[in-house]
Amino acid sequence: MFEEILKNVSANLPLVHSITNYVTVNDCANILLACGGSPIMADDLAEAAEITTICNSLVINIGTLNERTIESMIAAGKKANELGHPVILDPVGAGASTFRTQTVFRLIKEVKFSVIRGNISEIKTVYAGSGTTKGVDADVNDAVTDSNIGEAINFAQVLSEKTGAIIAITGAIDIVCGANKAYIIRNGHPLMSRITGTGCMLTCVIGAYCGANYDNMLDSTAAAVCAMGLCGELAYAKTVKNDGGTSSFRTYLIDYMSKMDAQLLNGGIKIETR
Amino acid sequence: MFEEILKNVSANLPLVHSITNYVTVNDCANILLACGGSPIMADDLAEAAEITTICNSLVINIGTLNERTIESMIAAGKKANELGHPVILDPVGAGASTFRTQTVFRLIKEVKFSVIRGNISEIKTVYAGSGTTKGVDADVNDAVTDSNIGEAINFAQVLSEKTGAIIAITGAIDIVCGANKAYIIRNGHPLMSRITGTGCMLTCVIGAYCGANYDNMLDSTAAAVCAMGLCGELAYAKTVKNDGGTSSFRTYLIDYMSKMDAQLLNGGIKIETR
Amino acid sequence: MFEEILKNVSANLPLVHSITNYVTVNDCANILLACGGSPIMADDLAEAAEITTICNSLVINIGTLNERTIESMIAAGKKANELGHPVILDPVGAGASTFRTQTVFRLIKEVKFSVIRGNISEIKTVYAGSGTTKGVDADVNDAVTDSNIGEAINFAQVLSEKTGAIIAITGAIDIVCGANKAYIIRNGHPLMSRITGTGCMLTCVIGAYCGANYDNMLDSTAAAVCAMGLCGELAYAKTVKNDGGTSSFRTYLIDYMSKMDAQLLNGGIKIETR
Repeated sequence: MFEEILKNVSANLPLVHSITNYVTVNDCANILLACGGSPIMADDLAEAAEITTICNSLVINIGTLNERTIESMIAAGKKANELGHPVILDPVGAGASTFRTQTVFRLIKEVKFSVIRGNISEIKTVYAGSGTTKGVDADVNDAVTDSNIGEAINFAQVLSEKTGAIIAITGAIDIVCGANKAYIIRNGHPLMSRITGTGCMLTCVIGAYCGANYDNMLDSTAAAVCAMGLCGELAYAKTVKNDGGTSSFRTYLIDYMSKMDAQLLNGGIKIETR
Repeated sequence: MFEEILKNVSANLPLVHSITNYVTVNDCANILLACGGSPIMADDLAEAAEITTICNSLVINIGTLNERTIESMIAAGKKANELGHPVILDPVGAGASTFRTQTVFRLIKEVKFSVIRGNISEIKTVYAGSGTTKGVDADVNDAVTDSNIGEAINFAQVLSEKTGAIIAITGAIDIVCGANKAYIIRNGHPLMSRITGTGCMLTCVIGAYCGANYDNMLDSTAAAVCAMGLCGELAYAKTVKNDGGTSSFRTYLIDYMSKMDAQLLNGGIKIETR
Repeated sequence: MFEEILKNVSANLPLVHSITNYVTVNDCANILLACGGSPIMADDLAEAAEITTICNSLVINIGTLNERTIESMIAAGKKANELGHPVILDPVGAGASTFRTQTVFRLIKEVKFSVIRGNISEIKTVYAGSGTTKGVDADVNDAVTDSNIGEAINFAQVLSEKTGAIIAITGAIDIVCGANKAYIIRNGHPLMSRITGTGCMLTCVIGAYCGANYDNMLDSTAAAVCAMGLCGELAYAKTVKNDGGTSSFRTYLIDYMSKMDAQLLNGGIKIETR
């Protein structure tokens, strides 16, 4: 179902500006290249906005937030808004400290985001100013399950209306929704939470897909979530086959993103509309 | 012999706050997840202490030291001390510059460390304010051998008494000692020095093991040193089998950490008590 | 033809100080170790120059430039000049922002470089203050081809005369030239542009090779370019064999650098003199 989305990525080679954390930045750059985009990371105020002008989209990730780069995030975000570029927010660890939570609120106030992607605890924090986190991981008590998924979609839609952004909540079950339409996605594998950066990488893939598909960001986001989850499933199978562990899994995950195309994707997606 | 240590890691999923260098931070995060812990990296003064409150232990690594993060290290360290959390120091490159050496002394003065892990040159610098280093690697003239190991244990025990910390000196032969007891560990493989980050990763694993075993930090540290060394041996064997090089070795090293359990560990540890 | 160069690397284990970006820094450290060197990264003004004194060469890479580290680059560069150490510049993304372009000009004014390595767009910017870039990648319109290679060599030689540096332009066809002699190198594989950091890694290998061969920097640079390109070819073959993708390719690339020796290199180099 996402042929057009992927075709536009191939045709446009979207250049994605990421102001992101230094923990997973290398994985982010590599998956951007793997998925058909191109990365640039520029976090100094002296160039952040100017670099944005030559890009197709902007990703803001607060994983290793510091005072210096917040101003760069805002300057780049405002410039991207001015130019009509998609801006994607990854509120890593929102709720884990007052500094992160307040910065997320400031970012949302000053920059208009196209997509906000996080785990359920992070998105709850964005929504309500509360929500508990276990560091950068979701609190198990928050987990989206078949029994509470309706509730999760409801608050995601309210948040989508309030912010104007597509909301992507990822975990064992993924939700991608705009104000009027929601996707439930069941791709992925539990091993994805045993490596760092799957969330950050996904946010960058969303940045690339949206950067090549300005007119359909809901489907672009859903396509990226499906693609990432499917890569996780394929990587898990290869890890088992090669008697590997979590680091081999990380390698195969990016490998499969570099092989992803419409045929592979459509053969494996597990998506439903609500 | 370390069943209890590993069982507590599995049961507690220790969250480890690391203020560390940007060279090996991704490897650190991945090995923390691989060994059964969970990573968070927060180096801004605005949140460093607060993040520590939600964690089980703190790792301070000076590999890419800068003026901004020293204050964060101290704030987080003091908070961890206040809460009774283990604090682990990795004095990367101590002795390589006045800045690093003086910062290490300041850290030790202001923060009480539970464990200090370094190569022999770094630990000599911590001990005596001298000691030569070849950048971030130990000076070959300092190397611990069977003929000088008694001397090395002696000064490590003096340092342990002085600081109250477990001292771990790692290299071809590893020493882990408290004021009254020392372990000599002969796990490991020379290829471990041909990739970056084996020391930093080990320090993080110590952070995870200690974070789940507050009452037995000597054995937790020894268990982590054994586990890391054994992963190096297993990774070397797989590298040879697959005709790989140093980067494959790195992947397999983390892979084996993700597979480590009491049975695997006890089948391979080479440890003696002094 | 490069036996002597490689022999000196093995004999000297050159310690390379890199002030570089946080996107590819881990790859840089690992390839430095793989190629027979040793890495240290120190970017704070409080130690940058002092760390340089214990090293054999210095690499300056502006991939994630910020105000704080520019002064460290200049201090370390001046110290390396004073000591007669090779200094290598990687002007990542020069031309992509005014900040980067102006910083490159300032660096070249204040520090004498032994080698400048970049893609064609970056080198054009260094040469002419102009040149377009697609972020950190070369503009396709700038690409060196068999029909315009004479022109590219010409401007590289003028730039070499002007700066006193060896100029290395890398892409599908690589050019390495001093004021009076040029090498054209045809090693490499297109997949090298689908991972991040091949350029940064190559610059570090140049730093290691030059750090062990002060008296022959032109050939050291050419040897490093050949070695990296050959690793790309070998890594591609292994990637195909193992049905891998871009991340496996990255692993194999570093693997082959750790296996590189004069015999392997001479069996595969594609070099001609102009």
